[in-house]
Formats: sequence, structure tokens, C-alpha cells
Amino acid sequence: MPFFCYFREQFYPLDTPILQSNDLGLLRGYGLFDYFRTYNGIPFRFEDYWARFTNSAASLGLEVPLSEVGVRSILQRLYDLSEEREVAYRLLLTGGYAPDGLSVSQPNFIIRTEALPVDNPEGRKKGIKVIPYEYVRDLPYVKSTGYVHLIKMRTELKQESAADLLFYKNGLVSELTRSNIFIVRSGILITPSKDALRGITRKVVMEKAVGRYPVEERDITLAEVLAADEVFTTSTTKWVMPVTMVGDTKIGSGLPGPVTAELLAALENEFVAYGRSEIGSRKSAG
Amino acid sequence: MPFFCYFREQFYPLDTPILQSNDLGLLRGYGLFDYFRTYNGIPFRFEDYWARFTNSAASLGLEVPLSEVGVRSILQRLYDLSEEREVAYRLLLTGGYAPDGLSVSQPNFIIRTEALPVDNPEGRKKGIKVIPYEYVRDLPYVKSTGYVHLIKMRTELKQESAADLLFYKNGLVSELTRSNIFIVRSGILITPSKDALRGITRKVVMEKAVGRYPVEERDITLAEVLAADEVFTTSTTKWVMPVTMVGDTKIGSGLPGPVTAELLAALENEFVAYGRSEIGSRKSAG
Repeated sequence: MPFFCYFREQFYPLDTPILQSNDLGLLRGYGLFDYFRTYNGIPFRFEDYWARFTNSAASLGLEVPLSEVGVRSILQRLYDLSEEREVAYRLLLTGGYAPDGLSVSQPNFIIRTEALPVDNPEGRKKGIKVIPYEYVRDLPYVKSTGYVHLIKMRTELKQESAADLLFYKNGLVSELTRSNIFIVRSGILITPSKDALRGITRKVVMEKAVGRYPVEERDITLAEVLAADEVFTTSTTKWVMPVTMVGDTKIGSGLPGPVTAELLAALENEFVAYGRSEIGSRKSAG
Repeated sequence: MPFFCYFREQFYPLDTPILQSNDLGLLRGYGLFDYFRTYNGIPFRFEDYWARFTNSAASLGLEVPLSEVGVRSILQRLYDLSEEREVAYRLLLTGGYAPDGLSVSQPNFIIRTEALPVDNPEGRKKGIKVIPYEYVRDLPYVKSTGYVHLIKMRTELKQESAADLLFYKNGLVSELTRSNIFIVRSGILITPSKDALRGITRKVVMEKAVGRYPVEERDITLAEVLAADEVFTTSTTKWVMPVTMVGDTKIGSGLPGPVTAELLAALENEFVAYGRSEIGSRKSAG
């Protein structure tokens, strides 16, 4: 339970005030992050998340002040401090402190352990509802901290009993606010090629589809989504989550479909098996 | 010189770590701010800035935890602590701490005094260069903390010896990254009607124009800007700043024009006179 964060070579309990109020992430929204979790105590696919994180940083012209090896050892220390079996991690990189409120100097890099997100097994069983929302993220390949639209729409989402927004622009869908979208049409898996974050779970699902279903990365219209046999969304926290309502339109039968179920099961198997051999060797070494 | 900030009923030196790392302004860019300064020790047009700030907060569904009167007394205290003749103020409101990294609970409200921004008298004399940049802010009437584009473009701006970006979309200009735009055409002052923050300096300049020049609020194309007699930009820190280059195009003669100069002078007179009677009565009362 004791979750800590790492900042400037120190470890702090999560609720410690650590930041000055002139951080550019705070003053100017100049920040990016990544978010991942452990399975069997091992950060799942950390190499993929790390690659995305460093790419996002490069896009914003920010230098990550630690190496992959350095971060891995901090993750381990945070894990040990937590005394939990599984944790979530958040990496946060900002433009740093700006005495003039604008100029980037030395980036601030924070690494946090957090409790696992609240699971939604009901959603996986029955499917979720999303609302189409005309918007495309400014820098869609950067995991920036810009989530104003999602939070601003929180009341509307609740009123509509919807779980998320589905971004589209000029008739083409891109992604949900924090997850990727796939549609199934005549046994083919299709996901947008453009304007969407390159999700790690998206990547794993595409790996799992090999030998099972053809996968196409291409433009998808909102009309295609509404007419799809199945729709699901993928993310670190949602895994493979069926989407059974888009606005007022029922998708397919209105129930999660067989392709969605098969890919979810394949993903769950991957999680269960993840790092098993590594744990074995670590335990015997310890 | 000792600048302080106010946060949760306490005053802290500006470089005190006061914020936890799960603030939604930081994690999700869910924040808004306002920025103003004193003339003759009095916050200039505070009532206008306060109105805009509370409107921005309402747009993001955030409650401001203090009244105008309460904030005024904090501003006075911060001013006294600074021992400066003139200060700048920044109000910052965020979605607050989110244990789940996403949900708004109690907003965080920070009030900072800061040193006055570095003045640019050279720019006022010779004019500045701006670069057209295809973009329109998501929530243009909200003074949100989203400035990713400006900071991301910092190197390009420097390389081009440009002071700022001029946002345009679908051929229409809206604003600079942190200031409004006016053009002068045949003795008429024109400023965009849409997709631009309602600047307080913009408002004061329009007041000063009354009886001098007709003012039009309407759509302005980028082509009109390039062909204008004069272009200038207005903000709390820039006052009335001539724009003499837009990309590679020289505006008018390439020098600041007479209308720009006249409005700048009128604004400066307003600053010099601001709050004079108030100071007098306060001093005699003290």
C-alpha cells in the first residue's frame, strides 16, 4: 500500500508536496506521460512503453534525464516500497521550472507508483457505450497531458451513462480519449492508421491476431464504426473492452462479439504468463 | 523582491514545493489561469481580469474557492510582502488532486506574485516578426494552460528571429499565442470576432479608439493581414506592439505606423494615470 514517487533522486510518499507552482506542465500544459502496470510483479512490456515515452519527449524537445536502466531500477525500488503484488506506474515529464513562466530549462521527471485502476469486468461482459465527439488531438502520436475535453465532458458522459468519447474529425474516427479503437467487419480486424496514439495494448492485440484474423490499418469512417459487426477498444487499463453502443446506435447484436472475446482471452493469457520464467530465475537467485 | 504565492490559506516563498504530483493541471492539463499587473501599485482593471477568470473556470466546470473580495485582499498582502513598486500576478486554477489521476474533486487555486515581465521597448520601436501557424485553440474563450504549440515551436521561432506565432485556420486569423491581433486598413481598426481570447488590453484599446478610429470586429483573412497598412498585437505584457513582419512579408512600410503609435500612447497615458486618486486617498487614510 505505501505508494511512493521518485523525483530528483529522492523517494517521497505520494501525497508529499514536491513541486513548485512554476512547473511548465502546470502553467503551460507542457508535459507528457506514460502509464503501465505490472503482471506477476514485472512491468509489462516496459521496453515498448519506454520507447514511446522517449519518442514523446523527443517530439516536445525535452531530454529525459535518466536512462532505461536507471528507470528500471527506480521502478523496482518503488515496487518493493509498495509491498503490493501488482502496481501501476506513471512516468511524467514536464518542461521543468520556469522562472519566467514560459522558458524550458531542466525538465522535471517524476515516477509514481499507483494503485491498479478500478477494473470493469461488467464492461467486458456487457460492453460499454461511447459518444462520438468531433475532435482530433493536436499531437496524436505524443502522449501529452492534454485531456481538457474528456474532463470537461465528464458530466455529459455521466448523464449519457457513457464510458468515454470517440474522437472523429471530417468523418474519420481516430481513437477514444485514452484508448485505441478496432472494428471487426466480415472477420477482418481494422484499426485507424492515422491520428491515434500507438497503443502498446493495440500492438499486442495485433500480434495476437496473427494467424487468426487479417488486420488492416487504414482510415475508418464513423459510418463504418456504426455498421461494424463488432467494435472494441484497447488500452493498458481496459485490455480488450467491447463497445456495444456508439451514441444511440447499437453495434451488431448489442452484445460483445466472438472476435472481441477471443482476443480478450488471448491477451489475458499473455498477462497470466508474463515474466513467469523471469520470476522463477529471480527467486532462485535471491 | 520576496515574491510569494498563496495556496490553501497559506503564503509561501515562490520556490516552495507546494503541490502534490497528482494535480490534474499537471497530469491532465486541466487548468486555467489569468495574468495581470499593477500600475502605481494597483492591479490594473482587476475587475475585468476577474470576470474573465471566473468565466474560464465556469467553462471548465471548476468552482473558484474564493470571492473577488477575498482575492483582492490576498493580492494586497502579496504586494506588501514583495516590497516592490510594481508586480505581476498570476491566478492559477486546476482540477485539484486526483487520487485516480482523472476525477475532479476540489480545485487547487494558487495566486502568485511575480517580477514584471522583461519589457521590449525595442520591439515597440521597430516592430516584431510573427510566423503564421495553422492552428486554432480548442477552447479559444478560455484562458487554459494549453500552450504546447508555442513551446514546441520555440527553436523555430528563435531561428527565424520571430517573436511569436500567428494562429490561422481555414484562411482566417484568430490571435497570437498569448495576445490579440488588430489590423489597420484605410484608417479602420479591425480585429477578429471569433476564436480569440477576449483580451483585456484588446478591450482597453477598443475604448481608446472611440472617437479616433472606427472599429470592426469581424473575420480577417491571412491575406488581409499581409496586405494591411498596419498590424499590431495587444496584451498585458506587450501593450500595443507593432507587428512589422508576418512570415517573410513586410507589413506596410516595414515600420510601426501612426495609428499603432497613437493607440500605444493612449494606453501608456492610461497606465500612468491609473489609480492615482485611489492612491491619494489611501495614503491620506494611512
